[in-house]
Amino acid sequence: MSCNTCETQAIASLCDDIRTLRPLVHCITNYVTVNDCANILLAAGAAPVMADDRAEAAEIASIAQALVINIGTLNERTIESMKLAARAAAKKNIPILLDPVGAGASALRTKTALSLVEEFRFAVIRGNRSEIAVLLGGQGGTRGVDATGQATEADGETAARLAEKTGAVVAVTGAVDYISDGAKILSVSNGHPMMAQITGSGCMLSALLGAWLASGRAAARDAGRAEITGSDLHAAAGGIAAIGLAGEAAARAAGAAGTGSFRVALIDAVSRLDGRTLGEGMRLDAR
Amino acid sequence: MSCNTCETQAIASLCDDIRTLRPLVHCITNYVTVNDCANILLAAGAAPVMADDRAEAAEIASIAQALVINIGTLNERTIESMKLAARAAAKKNIPILLDPVGAGASALRTKTALSLVEEFRFAVIRGNRSEIAVLLGGQGGTRGVDATGQATEADGETAARLAEKTGAVVAVTGAVDYISDGAKILSVSNGHPMMAQITGSGCMLSALLGAWLASGRAAARDAGRAEITGSDLHAAAGGIAAIGLAGEAAARAAGAAGTGSFRVALIDAVSRLDGRTLGEGMRLDAR
Amino acid sequence: MSCNTCETQAIASLCDDIRTLRPLVHCITNYVTVNDCANILLAAGAAPVMADDRAEAAEIASIAQALVINIGTLNERTIESMKLAARAAAKKNIPILLDPVGAGASALRTKTALSLVEEFRFAVIRGNRSEIAVLLGGQGGTRGVDATGQATEADGETAARLAEKTGAVVAVTGAVDYISDGAKILSVSNGHPMMAQITGSGCMLSALLGAWLASGRAAARDAGRAEITGSDLHAAAGGIAAIGLAGEAAARAAGAAGTGSFRVALIDAVSRLDGRTLGEGMRLDAR
Repeated sequence: MSCNTCETQAIASLCDDIRTLRPLVHCITNYVTVNDCANILLAAGAAPVMADDRAEAAEIASIAQALVINIGTLNERTIESMKLAARAAAKKNIPILLDPVGAGASALRTKTALSLVEEFRFAVIRGNRSEIAVLLGGQGGTRGVDATGQATEADGETAARLAEKTGAVVAVTGAVDYISDGAKILSVSNGHPMMAQITGSGCMLSALLGAWLASGRAAARDAGRAEITGSDLHAAAGGIAAIGLAGEAAARAAGAAGTGSFRVALIDAVSRLDGRTLGEGMRLDAR
Repeated sequence: MSCNTCETQAIASLCDDIRTLRPLVHCITNYVTVNDCANILLAAGAAPVMADDRAEAAEIASIAQALVINIGTLNERTIESMKLAARAAAKKNIPILLDPVGAGASALRTKTALSLVEEFRFAVIRGNRSEIAVLLGGQGGTRGVDATGQATEADGETAARLAEKTGAVVAVTGAVDYISDGAKILSVSNGHPMMAQITGSGCMLSALLGAWLASGRAAARDAGRAEITGSDLHAAAGGIAAIGLAGEAAARAAGAAGTGSFRVALIDAVSRLDGRTLGEGMRLDAR
Repeated sequence: MSCNTCETQAIASLCDDIRTLRPLVHCITNYVTVNDCANILLAAGAAPVMADDRAEAAEIASIAQALVINIGTLNERTIESMKLAARAAAKKNIPILLDPVGAGASALRTKTALSLVEEFRFAVIRGNRSEIAVLLGGQGGTRGVDATGQATEADGETAARLAEKTGAVVAVTGAVDYISDGAKILSVSNGHPMMAQITGSGCMLSALLGAWLASGRAAARDAGRAEITGSDLHAAAGGIAAIGLAGEAAARAAGAAGTGSFRVALIDAVSRLDGRTLGEGMRLDAR
């Protein structure tokens, strides 16, 4: 079964909802790409707030519409803040996303990611193949923060298995992205290879998914569209398609100039994206 | 009374003075926009230095021409450094600016901002309406780091009241910016709405004001121009107009492309700005 | 003696080797320019990993092909991580680069840089004249992080003396860059003044040199080219010329627009650079 046009447009419309809702997305993220994460959220119409001190992490999380935890440059201090924030968000049913950056590359990352997944029920876990494999108890073979190997349908199975195990929607992103809630597996084939030539493509996607989750949850509380778009699965797929489509536009606009211009154009494209364009360009499949 | 052409040009000339003076501006700021802050200072002709460890904060502050304290991603460690740096700067009469990012959004931010204002005499306090209201003892309603509501003349009163209370020049920035030393209220109506669609507009302004303060203080030590421009009030107004005018230029140059290009063009515009252009474009009023 | 065409091309070819080898470069660096460092490494074809917690610094360093230590925003916590990482790298003979940002500007920076140089044998130490002078026991006169004065041949002598003292290849970079292993002194006269008008030119160079060192060491393990390019001295000179040539291209492409565009174009130029272009444009001299 392929997602039909109606479903696609309904999902894509969450893109416009973000600009109306302007969800506050609390990110505890790495200092490498934090500026890009803030800018991509603003470009999408959301409001970012970055706050990682243990003295305020819970308080900030509890006023947000989504919490994004990215372990890219984790440390003792921020790991504690991540847990305090996640506890506060969970208590208020605020969706939480985990980006287990570099899980498998060090014992600290693996242990931290596993313990977060153990303790909290995430709305979405998004990583590359290696990182997600590590969360499933595999080896992964992560070499720092980059994915290895080609995307295959096996990634969809990996996503489904971690989804089953954790109760989260799991996204294994790569050349083709696979998203599963354990029951269904969706794939998104938007995107461009240049996204792997800049830092932060994955982090920006995770941040952006915070806004999509907030938007999807809001839609779920409304009537009508809720049955199609009111799930974290569809919100995740929509957000993944959104940045992929923006990557395609950025490559067309600035790819020939180089990776610096591509990065600028990627944020440009997100800032100009609307639901109609996304609906037309989204390459989403279900099986 | 409206600032006359002569005054405006005198203030605007501080813009050129920065390039001659090349003031060293010590920023203890957040890791979200710190790169933008460094680049905007370099674009303006100043020299940034970012140093936040308690073991060196005082030493670095004491060799700077201005200190900028931004609590955007404050933590236990950096709060102590902010105080050590401020003490060192105060001892040497180096102007200090406070950007109380997100005051009102968490008890930690509110408490820290209030305690800084309590302990130190700032040359300038710059924030959005919510943040400044919190420093006055109000509620603010800050939702993280973004301002709410339309700019009104009431913002000028707010600025004046906090200025009276603290002895600082206070700037409430928004669609229209109000700056007061408690006696006079100036308003600046330069700027562009796209500035709110990128992260760091406020932080960059605060960093830039560090350079303007240094430049204004240097002018005050000189004869002649001192009576007009040698005040922190005028330096603050000039710096606010400068980034606003740069925002207008950036919107013309790159606004249609999107927010990523706008951000690049904003730094471009600051790097090309001179006193004559600023004097012609500055929309400064006094009442 | 001037490096002949054959030598130049051999060095320049390391530029292409980086794209084949894709070395993992572990950076413990400052939060001001860390994003630029990651992007320049990706632009060059390398893979960056930023990790600074003491619980994982050694483990990450030991899987990398180069370690870059930049003390730009050092603190108690990261200084310890730098040492743990350096110990792990040294044990596995992984080349380590030191960028002693701001040595001389505070006792903490001077003491940390000196103690790193005391304890570890660096493959490359790269800094501006002031920073390198401080490591030699001089005063330096560093004003934070910017170099002072014009480049002269005396910089070559300074580089040679620190090289002799430490066993590292030492690069004193400025308008003309001098690189020495204690025996030979090379100079590179690529580059553009706009590089000093953005933050991170030096940091990006240091990060990039991590990739060049890895590439040079790999070439040294191969036959044939090893005698010319298989030295850290030549790798350092090649990397310095590479970013200089990219700076020239960036100035032509975007210099007139301003410093924001220049910065984007600099990363663009690195992402498009190949060995042939570098070999043709490299201005390398030996004496």
